[in-house]
Amino acid sequence: MPNPPWDVMISTCPSRTSLARIANKWTAMIVIALDGDPLRFGALREAVDGISGKVLTETLRDLERDGIVSRTMYNEMPPRVEYQLTGLGQTLRGPLSALGQWAEEHIEDVLRARGEYDERSA
Amino acid sequence: MPNPPWDVMISTCPSRTSLARIANKWTAMIVIALDGDPLRFGALREAVDGISGKVLTETLRDLERDGIVSRTMYNEMPPRVEYQLTGLGQTLRGPLSALGQWAEEHIEDVLRARGEYDERSA
Repeated sequence: MPNPPWDVMISTCPSRTSLARIANKWTAMIVIALDGDPLRFGALREAVDGISGKVLTETLRDLERDGIVSRTMYNEMPPRVEYQLTGLGQTLRGPLSALGQWAEEHIEDVLRARGEYDERSA
Repeated sequence: MPNPPWDVMISTCPSRTSLARIANKWTAMIVIALDGDPLRFGALREAVDGISGKVLTETLRDLERDGIVSRTMYNEMPPRVEYQLTGLGQTLRGPLSALGQWAEEHIEDVLRARGEYDERSA
């Protein structure tokens, strides 16, 4: 057992703040997008279709702070900045890809459930 | 290949809306809490320490609409309402428990990364 026994179900446990960061759609898509070579900001923004520049900037900063993404600046003109998963971030690939796969595999069930719910509520 | 080929990385794909629902800290904790017997609202609120009544109500409604949680009202006085995972919701237990476990197992690495980041930024 870890010491102290971290428990996301306790609101004051620090692990709750980590869960909040990883159980997030943008985190999931960024980690899925960073599955191979390092990407520059613009390429990452294209890969995560629909993300705003502001949200991508903020999420990357949060993920860098949590040790999940690393940011490398190359001393070129103009400066080149690349993002990639750290070793820690790579351990998130499996769990977060599983969420993306679940959403794709089950969307037809979900859409059917939504239709039925909306009909009952109408 | 599914037809149409659902893809969460495309912003207009319906599967993105399902990802947004499941890649969420409250969804994760509710699904983790509903791992056994059906629970009443009050018991669920205790299990998901720190959730507000408003957020729990809204999240349960969203999860019911997506076919992940079912709500059963018993014709008693006062009425008893219980929540449990549907068959579809049970397929989310593995992926979402994995996120909770990741947060607990790696929080010490995350806290260390945060400390280093904050020191570099200071």
